[in-house]
Amino acid sequence: MADLVLADWLDGERDRIVETLLAWLRIPSISAHADRASDVRRSAEFAAAVMTGAGLEHVALVETDGLPAVYGDWRHAGADAPTVLVYGHHDVQPVEPLDEWRSPPFEPVIVDGECLARGAIDDKGQVLYEIEAVRGLLAETGGLPVNLKFLVEGEEEIGSPNFEALLAAERARLAADVIVVSDTGMWAADVPSICVGMRGLVAFDVTLRTAAGDLHSGVFGGAVPNPAHLVASIVARLHDESGRVTVPGFYDDVRPLDAAEADSLARLAFDEAAWRANAGVARTEGEAGYSVLERTTVRPTCDVVGIGVGYTGPGIKTIVPATGGFKVTFRLVPDQRPPAVADAFESWLRSRVPDGVEVEIEPEGPGVAPLVTDVTEPAIGALAAAIERVWGTTPLFTREGGSGPEESLGRMLAAPVLFLGVGLPGDRIHAPNERMVMDQFWKGLLAAAELWRELGDLGRSGLRGG
Amino acid sequence: MADLVLADWLDGERDRIVETLLAWLRIPSISAHADRASDVRRSAEFAAAVMTGAGLEHVALVETDGLPAVYGDWRHAGADAPTVLVYGHHDVQPVEPLDEWRSPPFEPVIVDGECLARGAIDDKGQVLYEIEAVRGLLAETGGLPVNLKFLVEGEEEIGSPNFEALLAAERARLAADVIVVSDTGMWAADVPSICVGMRGLVAFDVTLRTAAGDLHSGVFGGAVPNPAHLVASIVARLHDESGRVTVPGFYDDVRPLDAAEADSLARLAFDEAAWRANAGVARTEGEAGYSVLERTTVRPTCDVVGIGVGYTGPGIKTIVPATGGFKVTFRLVPDQRPPAVADAFESWLRSRVPDGVEVEIEPEGPGVAPLVTDVTEPAIGALAAAIERVWGTTPLFTREGGSGPEESLGRMLAAPVLFLGVGLPGDRIHAPNERMVMDQFWKGLLAAAELWRELGDLGRSGLRGG
Repeated sequence: MADLVLADWLDGERDRIVETLLAWLRIPSISAHADRASDVRRSAEFAAAVMTGAGLEHVALVETDGLPAVYGDWRHAGADAPTVLVYGHHDVQPVEPLDEWRSPPFEPVIVDGECLARGAIDDKGQVLYEIEAVRGLLAETGGLPVNLKFLVEGEEEIGSPNFEALLAAERARLAADVIVVSDTGMWAADVPSICVGMRGLVAFDVTLRTAAGDLHSGVFGGAVPNPAHLVASIVARLHDESGRVTVPGFYDDVRPLDAAEADSLARLAFDEAAWRANAGVARTEGEAGYSVLERTTVRPTCDVVGIGVGYTGPGIKTIVPATGGFKVTFRLVPDQRPPAVADAFESWLRSRVPDGVEVEIEPEGPGVAPLVTDVTEPAIGALAAAIERVWGTTPLFTREGGSGPEESLGRMLAAPVLFLGVGLPGDRIHAPNERMVMDQFWKGLLAAAELWRELGDLGRSGLRGG
Repeated sequence: MADLVLADWLDGERDRIVETLLAWLRIPSISAHADRASDVRRSAEFAAAVMTGAGLEHVALVETDGLPAVYGDWRHAGADAPTVLVYGHHDVQPVEPLDEWRSPPFEPVIVDGECLARGAIDDKGQVLYEIEAVRGLLAETGGLPVNLKFLVEGEEEIGSPNFEALLAAERARLAADVIVVSDTGMWAADVPSICVGMRGLVAFDVTLRTAAGDLHSGVFGGAVPNPAHLVASIVARLHDESGRVTVPGFYDDVRPLDAAEADSLARLAFDEAAWRANAGVARTEGEAGYSVLERTTVRPTCDVVGIGVGYTGPGIKTIVPATGGFKVTFRLVPDQRPPAVADAFESWLRSRVPDGVEVEIEPEGPGVAPLVTDVTEPAIGALAAAIERVWGTTPLFTREGGSGPEESLGRMLAAPVLFLGVGLPGDRIHAPNERMVMDQFWKGLLAAAELWRELGDLGRSGLRGG
């Protein structure tokens, strides 16, 4: 890798960078927990300090109606150089169930070349290598080949409720020719890949109430509505026997996969046994007529993420519970629209709740639209070249099953979205024992610098295909 | 009520008795919570002290493999007098959800003639009036008309897992001609009634595991089994469209209601609107073809008391959970047998769990068989006379929908079981804001003394119908 611009520089910096990573990961910036708001702010301030130290300018927290983002830039590459906006986030997922972690989620450790902590790969690690690539290029070359802007969000893990407002308010400051999102993964450590699409997301918190209070199951059981039975019957009917979502019209706007992408999907070697082992499952399920790969990337899905009804503590409590509910997420693909799916779900759900039972349907954020980037964009070629130089292999194109605010970014800033992400399938994001493979982290740092060189070589005109 | 043996005595004792009641209710003797074991023991010691103070002899804690019961007796009525075993329990239900209590569950208060606390009516209040009746008779008459034994259990609310072993070990000490259970209720404050049957109970804690750990719903969702969907589909199929339990053979051993009891049921005035208001529900449900009263007393039922799957905290967590489960109770009627129902449920459940998913089925205790007492027993006549004298009205016969260890008592001690209970439909047992109507408590105390006089008058020979 001697031809990589930051290879030599990096050799002297690894210990310092690791210390920075671990310090950031110690901050429990869980955006879903209101009582962690000060920790999320502390995480933003930490990111700001690292950005300033790296040589970025105009570094500042960007306040929202919720939790703060962080901005910083370096704009001395000249008017002909492209402007690149790097996007990531500094908030993290909750950590329950705590007892399944091999080490505490906010006491990061590096074991066998893996960094184990909440936020290691999603997304502090992926933000940090972008920032450190700036520091390296400034140190090695005295400048950057592109004008760079960073936007590090603080509410990504709660569905980015204030992100569109932030983009609208900061449109001028954030204007860019290309957006680089650093929050995704690759097919495998030895099969580098480029994400060209992400699924959208809508999520709901549903609560039912059948009685004023819990009732004795011997005295009232068998004659009063039981929210456990009702929640179960609703959740059980979300899918039909063939694994398809039953909400009317759910599939109406799904764009058929075009031949080129279907071909690309087919070329990805998929070892289902290895996939199951990595997932830690003994069986696969899902929509009939589609492969595991299709189900997890190009097909829309519905998963209930939690059910809570009645008594779940130790022993038994002989009650008929009074309330209960569930949380459900829908992953969307082009051209499904979050508001249409939300409306269809709410109508379907209300039709399943009998008279005399109260129901509350609380949307979790405004939803995220699905995103697909055109593979003929010149910027995609630049990213492919950068990745090939670092990993030594031509990357394949994939779609991610996950969802993020990237669709808003591309749409509101009117720029193509590139995904440079080094996550791997076994990283256990959102789950206990989240990890980041350190070798991927270092490669990500090197690739970020290579990508900016490629984009600088293209120039603004080249980026536009001119 | 001047002809009642304890009426005058009681007038001078009310304040002291209330203080004793409140002090006992302050002890959080929750048998379902392992960390409350010392509180359950403290409750047993409190009961023992009150029994000793009342004049009972041989008072002692009865140790089990679990939580302690309390024994005490007074055996000076002579060989021709019947021996009566009074049964109750001093442990209480858990108190969640705490935020629905109008005052803290273990800080008892008396408001508008009602005592509000966990355990007020179930069952400390009902044990206390029996003990205080002993104190009153000894003070007023210098003796008791029967030989009395008390057994106050400490594990009733967790299904009495060690009760049969206790009865087997203590059979000689507990031998009695009639058993008086003080743990049930009446039709209404102005419609006194005698319970002649209770439903049996089997309960299970079911846990499913589909993956080694929680998985990201974007990356794995739609292709891995989801325990939320699986639990929902199992719970949803416990009942069919007509509200009948689907477990094969569940109804096979149900004894048809005989004409006399059906007639008695029909004579009970039942106001469904008032029943709904009392239950705090806006609709009734249940097995097609049966009334609300039949569903809650003479028909077997199945209620899921809790479901816990995945993430149920604040906000959303975009996971496919790895584990989930539910707690289910079956109420049984004659001649259903707990082991047969348990076997049928387990077989049914295992047949619904697909390969590759782990299932654990944990029975909650050994189960309780259903119980019916023959209304022609002379002891039933004695109880009816005692109740009529105190309430001024001839009691009706009912069955309770609840379950207790009374079946074991009657079977293992080979004696008829009488239910003297003053609970009312609005007492919210097992639920937030459990209460005891103090007027019922005082009547229970008076009725206990009258019952012992009636049983003393019958004598041992009269009890046997001789």
